Amino acid sequence: MLNEQMKRDLIEIRRDLHRHPEQGFLEMRTASLVTAELLRLGFGVRTGLDVMEPDAVMGKPTDAETAAHFKWAKENGAVPETVDWFKDGYTGIAADWKTGRPGPVTVFRVDMDALPILESEDAGHVPQSEGFRSVNDGSMHACGHDAHTSIGLGLARLIAEKADQLAGTVRILFQPAEEGTRGARSMAEAGVVDDADFFIATHVGTGVPHRTFLAASNGFLATSKIDVTFKGIASHAGAKPEEGRNALLAAANAAINLHAISRHSGGSTRVNVGELHAGSGRNVIAAHASMKIETRGENSEVNAYVKEQAERIIRGAADMYGVRYDFRTVGEAIDCKCSEELARRLADSAGKSDYVDEVMLADHASAGSEDATYFMDRVIRHGGQATYCIAGTDLAAGHHNERFDINEETMFSAVDVLFRAALDLNGRA
Amino acid sequence: MLNEQMKRDLIEIRRDLHRHPEQGFLEMRTASLVTAELLRLGFGVRTGLDVMEPDAVMGKPTDAETAAHFKWAKENGAVPETVDWFKDGYTGIAADWKTGRPGPVTVFRVDMDALPILESEDAGHVPQSEGFRSVNDGSMHACGHDAHTSIGLGLARLIAEKADQLAGTVRILFQPAEEGTRGARSMAEAGVVDDADFFIATHVGTGVPHRTFLAASNGFLATSKIDVTFKGIASHAGAKPEEGRNALLAAANAAINLHAISRHSGGSTRVNVGELHAGSGRNVIAAHASMKIETRGENSEVNAYVKEQAERIIRGAADMYGVRYDFRTVGEAIDCKCSEELARRLADSAGKSDYVDEVMLADHASAGSEDATYFMDRVIRHGGQATYCIAGTDLAAGHHNERFDINEETMFSAVDVLFRAALDLNGRA
Amino acid sequence: MLNEQMKRDLIEIRRDLHRHPEQGFLEMRTASLVTAELLRLGFGVRTGLDVMEPDAVMGKPTDAETAAHFKWAKENGAVPETVDWFKDGYTGIAADWKTGRPGPVTVFRVDMDALPILESEDAGHVPQSEGFRSVNDGSMHACGHDAHTSIGLGLARLIAEKADQLAGTVRILFQPAEEGTRGARSMAEAGVVDDADFFIATHVGTGVPHRTFLAASNGFLATSKIDVTFKGIASHAGAKPEEGRNALLAAANAAINLHAISRHSGGSTRVNVGELHAGSGRNVIAAHASMKIETRGENSEVNAYVKEQAERIIRGAADMYGVRYDFRTVGEAIDCKCSEELARRLADSAGKSDYVDEVMLADHASAGSEDATYFMDRVIRHGGQATYCIAGTDLAAGHHNERFDINEETMFSAVDVLFRAALDLNGRA
Amino acid sequence: MLNEQMKRDLIEIRRDLHRHPEQGFLEMRTASLVTAELLRLGFGVRTGLDVMEPDAVMGKPTDAETAAHFKWAKENGAVPETVDWFKDGYTGIAADWKTGRPGPVTVFRVDMDALPILESEDAGHVPQSEGFRSVNDGSMHACGHDAHTSIGLGLARLIAEKADQLAGTVRILFQPAEEGTRGARSMAEAGVVDDADFFIATHVGTGVPHRTFLAASNGFLATSKIDVTFKGIASHAGAKPEEGRNALLAAANAAINLHAISRHSGGSTRVNVGELHAGSGRNVIAAHASMKIETRGENSEVNAYVKEQAERIIRGAADMYGVRYDFRTVGEAIDCKCSEELARRLADSAGKSDYVDEVMLADHASAGSEDATYFMDRVIRHGGQATYCIAGTDLAAGHHNERFDINEETMFSAVDVLFRAALDLNGRA
Repeated sequence: MLNEQMKRDLIEIRRDLHRHPEQGFLEMRTASLVTAELLRLGFGVRTGLDVMEPDAVMGKPTDAETAAHFKWAKENGAVPETVDWFKDGYTGIAADWKTGRPGPVTVFRVDMDALPILESEDAGHVPQSEGFRSVNDGSMHACGHDAHTSIGLGLARLIAEKADQLAGTVRILFQPAEEGTRGARSMAEAGVVDDADFFIATHVGTGVPHRTFLAASNGFLATSKIDVTFKGIASHAGAKPEEGRNALLAAANAAINLHAISRHSGGSTRVNVGELHAGSGRNVIAAHASMKIETRGENSEVNAYVKEQAERIIRGAADMYGVRYDFRTVGEAIDCKCSEELARRLADSAGKSDYVDEVMLADHASAGSEDATYFMDRVIRHGGQATYCIAGTDLAAGHHNERFDINEETMFSAVDVLFRAALDLNGRA
Repeated sequence: MLNEQMKRDLIEIRRDLHRHPEQGFLEMRTASLVTAELLRLGFGVRTGLDVMEPDAVMGKPTDAETAAHFKWAKENGAVPETVDWFKDGYTGIAADWKTGRPGPVTVFRVDMDALPILESEDAGHVPQSEGFRSVNDGSMHACGHDAHTSIGLGLARLIAEKADQLAGTVRILFQPAEEGTRGARSMAEAGVVDDADFFIATHVGTGVPHRTFLAASNGFLATSKIDVTFKGIASHAGAKPEEGRNALLAAANAAINLHAISRHSGGSTRVNVGELHAGSGRNVIAAHASMKIETRGENSEVNAYVKEQAERIIRGAADMYGVRYDFRTVGEAIDCKCSEELARRLADSAGKSDYVDEVMLADHASAGSEDATYFMDRVIRHGGQATYCIAGTDLAAGHHNERFDINEETMFSAVDVLFRAALDLNGRA
Repeated sequence: MLNEQMKRDLIEIRRDLHRHPEQGFLEMRTASLVTAELLRLGFGVRTGLDVMEPDAVMGKPTDAETAAHFKWAKENGAVPETVDWFKDGYTGIAADWKTGRPGPVTVFRVDMDALPILESEDAGHVPQSEGFRSVNDGSMHACGHDAHTSIGLGLARLIAEKADQLAGTVRILFQPAEEGTRGARSMAEAGVVDDADFFIATHVGTGVPHRTFLAASNGFLATSKIDVTFKGIASHAGAKPEEGRNALLAAANAAINLHAISRHSGGSTRVNVGELHAGSGRNVIAAHASMKIETRGENSEVNAYVKEQAERIIRGAADMYGVRYDFRTVGEAIDCKCSEELARRLADSAGKSDYVDEVMLADHASAGSEDATYFMDRVIRHGGQATYCIAGTDLAAGHHNERFDINEETMFSAVDVLFRAALDLNGRA
Repeated sequence: MLNEQMKRDLIEIRRDLHRHPEQGFLEMRTASLVTAELLRLGFGVRTGLDVMEPDAVMGKPTDAETAAHFKWAKENGAVPETVDWFKDGYTGIAADWKTGRPGPVTVFRVDMDALPILESEDAGHVPQSEGFRSVNDGSMHACGHDAHTSIGLGLARLIAEKADQLAGTVRILFQPAEEGTRGARSMAEAGVVDDADFFIATHVGTGVPHRTFLAASNGFLATSKIDVTFKGIASHAGAKPEEGRNALLAAANAAINLHAISRHSGGSTRVNVGELHAGSGRNVIAAHASMKIETRGENSEVNAYVKEQAERIIRGAADMYGVRYDFRTVGEAIDCKCSEELARRLADSAGKSDYVDEVMLADHASAGSEDATYFMDRVIRHGGQATYCIAGTDLAAGHHNERFDINEETMFSAVDVLFRAALDLNGRA
């Protein structure tokens, strides 16, 4: 269904986005381009706090970081007419194509954010040799979200072009801050999928081979990302040790006991204190400590158990040393199982695509964490169907690697399959 | 001032007490004998809750232990007429000799309790070879309190016999439960020294040579003895580990962090978790843990600091593991400095005794802990003077050793010096 | 196949064993009775170190405990002619019935030991009301091993009686010390199943309903039972704290960090410090500590990982405090999967029994740990087939409960099914 | 003894040094100036590895830092003829004035290094308002070593000018890296005081009032400054936690247990983990951790005890988590008591100075740590006498404060008193 112009455009857009990666809640340039294109195509577009519940936003950069990046975005090609809508970092977008004909509401979701990785300058790294390596040093599209955003725009163009074949409503969500599982909950809680009959989230790669399409990727782990700080009182360790309140020791105790949280008979769990930084000088009782923590669970219940124990341990450790603490959830995702019927219909659509050689219905391997699960859970609880699909690709290096790169033809298969699914789900009678 | 009969009696009494040692708050047989003798001599005697504030009693045995020992006491020579007064374990005694003549109130204090030690059966151990080894297996007078009680009775007899040389009031306190520093506070808080102009506590030994008398033993460490229990929830460690609340881990964390309590610039401190017992089976999440803790401080302020930190650590550790805790002070003593003037007068009296070759005014060496400090502190705060003296002796083995024994002649010097002090302080004008 | 006399005898034997329970490596009375009966029937009997590798014996009682129990056994009905063979506590028995006809070697295994539980005196507890409650206070057959031993003897009798229908060799193992998974390895390593073509272990109950027979109970967890002691140096906590080497703190650190052993991606794990005992007095630096530890793993590899980490943690904790440690494996079991073909044949035999209403082929639920897995692993590695079967019963209370009791008719079904299996596997051509 | 020119020069030199502060082992510009002046005056000068034992150098900057600073020094006024001698950071200097006449060897010691402090730009801060604030941002003479170096040069000038009044040898040591107690030991071990009959170290301020001179500052604490790193193995905390070796947990355990090092009956101790940094990402098992540790002791023996325990704890913690560790002493000082006779003679000299109103013989207050103690200890052990004196001053703010400043007249008193001492000790007969 894709003509040569579309293919060239998909590659051009993806390379432009790859060259200008923006991390979570900073996708201002990206969102300005996406919004401008959606408006051009005739979509009804809602953005920012219209589609994001601010209380459910997790792990947002500071105001200073947000302001600094806004300046960068404006200086690096953001669309002037739309970029202001995103200056506060609420970068979510929901684009509706309402046919006016009765029919279901189908929601597609892609994500837009990049990772805090310094991209490789290796000559063999295609973005380097082809001239679209990141110009935003320290940020990189190393997980394919540049392709995801491009796929969303390609799908939007097909919908607009072939709108007369469709009924009901087709919606595309451009989500911020999937990395760290920070952005989806705020959009889900704003209600953007509450009327959905069908929901399809899409990812490229993740080990699925090129020209293979997986209709239902189950097995995502529930997870919580937690930042903890301890604040004590400094004092001279030689002269007045008793006047200090030792945040370093509170953190050290918390770290050890977090790892000692009991196993759970209800499923596998994980807990990690990945970073601990404390203290300001050799001879000073440390007044400050911070930790970066991650919990995971085979299901949401066991992850919730670990998180609850974690907070109790941190509170207890703070109390032991008479220090104050702050426990902040900066990312979270739940587990979710794909709807079998929708997965089958999506697999059928994939089977008809010229860009797909092999279709897999469902995979139950544990596959990390994803906050699209918030959308899926909400759709299913409201009576709809949801699935999470993977368009296979050739990976130059693993996800989150500084030499990550994809086969760009994967975008063609994804756009093709997703539009076929739209026709199937929302086809005009 | 002691005739031969007195000497023989002192030895006989001491050997009888040594043979029938009774631990703290169980000195029922001892108190019955003491009371009977004091009444015989004509002292005004108050006992039990008349001279003990029950809320300030620390580390009292259980009711069952108390009842069992009362039975033992009655079967082992307690005086039937007086023993019932002590059946609930409130074994303190205050004996007043009121001359009716105006004059100061002078208080002497001795203690009565034994230690939880199995006395040696070694042939070279004099109590064994002379037939007065403990018949109360597992209890032993290994700190000389048998001699102290005898000294108190000897002093009482001289006071009664030579009452016409005295003015004012002379009081003798027979204190329970000095071991573990448990008994003095209850008597002090009952007010038994609130009217005292002079207060003199007496100990034998402690490294002071035989026929040497030390008028003021300073340097006692403030101390707290604390029993802690943690109560969690048991569960099967394999099947349902998440349902447990782990008291063993709470205790383990508390123990380590108690030892990590900060040093204090205001003086030396000590903290020790001497015992930790937790759990009931290899495959059960431990629901119970207990610890025996001791803190010490060069002064009461730094000991209070350590104790306060200790409770916070224990509360925090309990909270970390979601278990309840009980923090019980089962013994406590403060520091105190002897009154210089009283020490000088007591030293003068000692200098006149035939049983003393050398008099030392004051010693500042750290000498463990003593709850007579509660009396001393109270007397001094009420405007009186107080001191803690040592009658030197030959020790067969160190205090609290299973082969501890003294030179019995030390009792003669103590009685002689203390009565000379009474004559000095309360002599009839 | 069981006549009324056999049924009466099974009940009588079981009640006698129930009344005289003996814990692991102390099954002297039991073994003396078993051996005497096997010899009477004409079995070839090997015992003790002929069928146990002493280096692989785990968690054996002390020599003093062994000697004391031997005295008890002789005074409580042990068979004088055979009991001496077991006086050192090597209580394993292997009984061979060699037909002299060519055919396979089939091994049945039962266990003999009791648990350290004080049996209920509740009137509703059948052993109490029927007069066969334990006379060995503190020991109890609360897991059905009394029935297992009886089943073994019943099976032996049928084999002897119907020997002309059999070919090859039928062996019955009476294993000591299954509780704590201590006894099987020593027999396996002595080679008692190395020639086995078929191996069948049997248990009653475990939640399988009465008159139901489960041919293959998979899912046993690998486990290690570990006793650790730390030996430090005592010193006075106030006077010379620096001279101590604190075993209590070494143990506390070990306990916490044992629980913090990393999860394993290869399967579920467990670790528990069930007991920790340390120290001898409040004011003494603790010179001694002990811990009872249990690890489990979904498979032997992950259990081995946990055990290896555990030893490293204990060594490190000991080193931190300058104390010595002893790490002793006092029980161990591996995982093992039943042979499908043998399970099917056993299920067929069960299907023919009048005492069985329902047959289940295999169950994969995790079912605790079992050291019969050592036999199974060895048989399968030598090319044989092995399974672990369950004869269902009505349980008065759960396994290891003080009111545990079974429906004695379960013994009939077990003997019947096992003998049918013997006929199937070793039937004369 | 000081003329106006000398006073102007002292101030000028001090302000130049203040404006160009150089941290420990980087005093290249300073040393080049000092050396040039000493050579000009006619001293015999030894530098670098001639007066420093490289194995005893502690806490030296990296080669890269050293090279970078050397560049800075050359660009900021170092004396070209002498600066090359110091390019590797061995910046110690020993300057001998040998009179050729028989007499004692007297050694004076000053230090040269600055602190890692950003100097105040406050208008009220004299170096700011007078234009000699640090031009080496992040480094500051906030402890008076600029004055010390100036005093050393002033003393050198007087010695050269009045050499005919002297006998024996007068030596002046210009020590690097006193901050962090890093530099003295290397000079002491190189033998620069082994022939000394008298040794006098000098400091300004430390709370002693202006125009007061303290001849013997006792009470320095023994101390060790230790940097520890742990190196483990990173792995993905969700996917393969068992493959990691957790350096963060090793460090956390070490930190807690370092604080739990037992108190010592031989004197007060301190231990502090002032900084702990570990890990590189939330979902990565931390492969790296570092800690900055400081121990102190009332005397060298108890500090050595704490340090020895510290290394054992760190080794044990590393072993617990299977990680490697590096334990590096980056600074160290011992305690030392001043020689009474030398202190008295120095006090006498001070009493004759017009710049001194009050002389104090000795002070026993604890006064932090000082590595001049290595020189003192060595001199005294070789049979000489040593003392550490303080020239009082008005402090604008405390030592190590960003607004630290002195009364420059203190330099006059110090030079005057020290030269008077030289005349006393080495006066021509």
